[in-house]
Amino acid sequence: MASRAVIKTSMTDRDRMEKIVSLAKRRGFIFPGSELYGGLAGTWDYGPLGTELKTIVRNEWRRRFVLGRTDMVQIESAILMNARVWKASGHLESFTDPMVDCRQCKARFRADKIDLAAACPQCGARDFTGARPFNMMFKTFIGPVEDSAAQIYLRPETAQGMFTNFKAVLDTMRPKLPFGIAQIGKAFRNEITPGNFIFRSREFEQMEIEYFIRPADWEAQFEAWLKEMRGWIASLGLDAARVHEREVAAEDLAHYSKRTVDIDYDFPFGREELYGIAYRTDFDLGQHAQESGADLGYFDEAAKERFVPHVIEPTFGLDRTVLALLLEHYQEEGAKDGTRVVLKFPPRIAPVKVAVFPLLANKPQLVERARGIFERLQGWRRAMGEGLVAWDDRGNIGKRYFSQDEIGTPWCVTVDFQTLEDGTVTVRDRDSAEQERVAEPDLVALFEERLKA
Amino acid sequence: MASRAVIKTSMTDRDRMEKIVSLAKRRGFIFPGSELYGGLAGTWDYGPLGTELKTIVRNEWRRRFVLGRTDMVQIESAILMNARVWKASGHLESFTDPMVDCRQCKARFRADKIDLAAACPQCGARDFTGARPFNMMFKTFIGPVEDSAAQIYLRPETAQGMFTNFKAVLDTMRPKLPFGIAQIGKAFRNEITPGNFIFRSREFEQMEIEYFIRPADWEAQFEAWLKEMRGWIASLGLDAARVHEREVAAEDLAHYSKRTVDIDYDFPFGREELYGIAYRTDFDLGQHAQESGADLGYFDEAAKERFVPHVIEPTFGLDRTVLALLLEHYQEEGAKDGTRVVLKFPPRIAPVKVAVFPLLANKPQLVERARGIFERLQGWRRAMGEGLVAWDDRGNIGKRYFSQDEIGTPWCVTVDFQTLEDGTVTVRDRDSAEQERVAEPDLVALFEERLKA
Repeated sequence: MASRAVIKTSMTDRDRMEKIVSLAKRRGFIFPGSELYGGLAGTWDYGPLGTELKTIVRNEWRRRFVLGRTDMVQIESAILMNARVWKASGHLESFTDPMVDCRQCKARFRADKIDLAAACPQCGARDFTGARPFNMMFKTFIGPVEDSAAQIYLRPETAQGMFTNFKAVLDTMRPKLPFGIAQIGKAFRNEITPGNFIFRSREFEQMEIEYFIRPADWEAQFEAWLKEMRGWIASLGLDAARVHEREVAAEDLAHYSKRTVDIDYDFPFGREELYGIAYRTDFDLGQHAQESGADLGYFDEAAKERFVPHVIEPTFGLDRTVLALLLEHYQEEGAKDGTRVVLKFPPRIAPVKVAVFPLLANKPQLVERARGIFERLQGWRRAMGEGLVAWDDRGNIGKRYFSQDEIGTPWCVTVDFQTLEDGTVTVRDRDSAEQERVAEPDLVALFEERLKA
Repeated sequence: MASRAVIKTSMTDRDRMEKIVSLAKRRGFIFPGSELYGGLAGTWDYGPLGTELKTIVRNEWRRRFVLGRTDMVQIESAILMNARVWKASGHLESFTDPMVDCRQCKARFRADKIDLAAACPQCGARDFTGARPFNMMFKTFIGPVEDSAAQIYLRPETAQGMFTNFKAVLDTMRPKLPFGIAQIGKAFRNEITPGNFIFRSREFEQMEIEYFIRPADWEAQFEAWLKEMRGWIASLGLDAARVHEREVAAEDLAHYSKRTVDIDYDFPFGREELYGIAYRTDFDLGQHAQESGADLGYFDEAAKERFVPHVIEPTFGLDRTVLALLLEHYQEEGAKDGTRVVLKFPPRIAPVKVAVFPLLANKPQLVERARGIFERLQGWRRAMGEGLVAWDDRGNIGKRYFSQDEIGTPWCVTVDFQTLEDGTVTVRDRDSAEQERVAEPDLVALFEERLKA
């Protein structure tokens, strides 16, 4: 098959989002949560391909920010934490949205999302209560008695786990400033209006870093981490033209922050926050020191002084990363042999690394030979600990290519009659749609080389 | 240093448990949850070494049961699920412990854990209510209104996520029977009496498989999976003499199971369940089909018949795996140069793969050379996606060896003056305490070879 002229088709933003949601469901990336029972708003289940994609993103993040550094440790703190954590952090008091109730139909709305001068969007009445703060943390009770002493919360962010473990990490690992504590894990927010697919959900996964520094270094460290974040974004193949760093205005800063930059992405539903970086000063450690009575200071041996470190916090949403990857790399291309849908993931990120096809399913020699290649490639991915290998012997080869394109598989290997003669297979490239013949023993080295690119 | 006579010291079981808890905390494996605020019973925070150990166990499990197989897919379903899931599964009605209240002091106890004929363990009164079922699922409310329609639960097991996604997986991935759906994730149980360190906690992590089969194959599949589980246990280096398969008696079987084998381990606090495998028949899919009205059948193309698959469920506790690994591999050895504590993890499992030492911290040539080796080894682990490399330049080499032994680092590399002359380093083996000289460029190949063993 010769290389072909590629015509990108045009899509509206709305189309694009619908297509991504549909593809994600149809091909086993992401299913609506509890769909069997009509769903549970704001929750999503990751299917086989979505799980592998998420696993790879987590691994890449760990490679870059944990395994590749000498100034970072990773922890996994519990989702259930002592309620005093949220008193100290300010979440109990301030992690709220203003809500109004309709006195007629009892429906509840976010006061800042409806027109209070107009009528109730549900029943049409114009009789609202005053706005009251609604805390977005999920509440539960621990232990056998459901009283206020037993009331706890699902963590609304992983960050506080790093602050509450700061002293334990300091005492056990004895790191020197500057150093960071990283965490990947679930967080929960009882959003009143979850939406935009996995963009705003009630259960989501964060990858966060609390980087502890000397106060005087904050500006340089902020810039250094912003650069690190740019490097990460580039590694995902996100087009820089769609990524925007937005300096949060002084009057909009959270109470704990002296500088925050939101890293926005042009989602189809608008320019919205993908990641963020905040200079949190010593607010969190100071609050926890005060609330717990513990000494959360660091002794600087060179300067012979003790002080509470300041913090730079780069934070990354895992689900938003997945959404940006799907949106960014989704392409429809018209060609003589039909329109194809392609997820042009960077090969390192692709959940399925390679697919193996016997040219014909009813030729045992081809199938057996292809099976051997499939198993060797699978052994390679098993050793690497990530990335699937697909097998397909259904329908014609063109259809199989298109099917793999749609899930972003970078390479398809076809075993044909020539393979039986000279031991070469066809390797078809997802992006160029070009094919080359490769000797079977060279396959892994070829893919490893291209995965590094 | 010559090889030395090893005398294992004797320890009581109680000692052993205390020592593990202490080591886990002292060296950054596991901290009590929310310790800064006096803790939160039944929760634990994993420190840097515990997080890496858990990550490696998850990866190994994925390698063996997902990436290494052609009949398995992995999903990640949400922790928050529609409440009807727990009606169908039976958890709403039956996932309970019997509780009694003391009418005097209002304390609550598990009815089967105290002597009801005696007085209240807290206030001494003898005035109990009758026993009432207490549901062990954590409750919360989703959305803005806290009414019964909004009441949901934190999942008490990952298993139901595989059943509720069975149809979605079937429709998208089109697997043929037999096939499995695997999941690694958190689950929550409001245990009245959490205890024994991370053995019974309120927040824990499971690695579960629901393997869907033809009903007639259940006995063979049960045996095949039991064998798989034995292979996994052997790969962890757990002594077979401490592992016991216990056939659960017919009268003790859960309502959904026709056969269950608990795989117990000799923990210091008794012979207790480590893993389990259950034949759950078509109970779960049948219940969900009935409750949801969905068709959860599978069409067998060969036999041209439609039926609800049966299920074999091998289940693995991740925290219990970590606990067994720590207990099993903990050794104290007396030798001429002092008693050493060693965690004899299989090298594949060890969180720190190798430590690098410059012989003397005040010789820049040694430090610089050692730093280069450290960075190359770290690059190797970064590429592998797991396993830390430690750096230590404090105190004498003997102390550094002992410090690495205590966290289970298989190899220590020392850069000395001979390194500057001939490019060789000392590689010291954790288990034999023997040293050999190895040319620096051969290090990675040597470690890779030994990691395969």
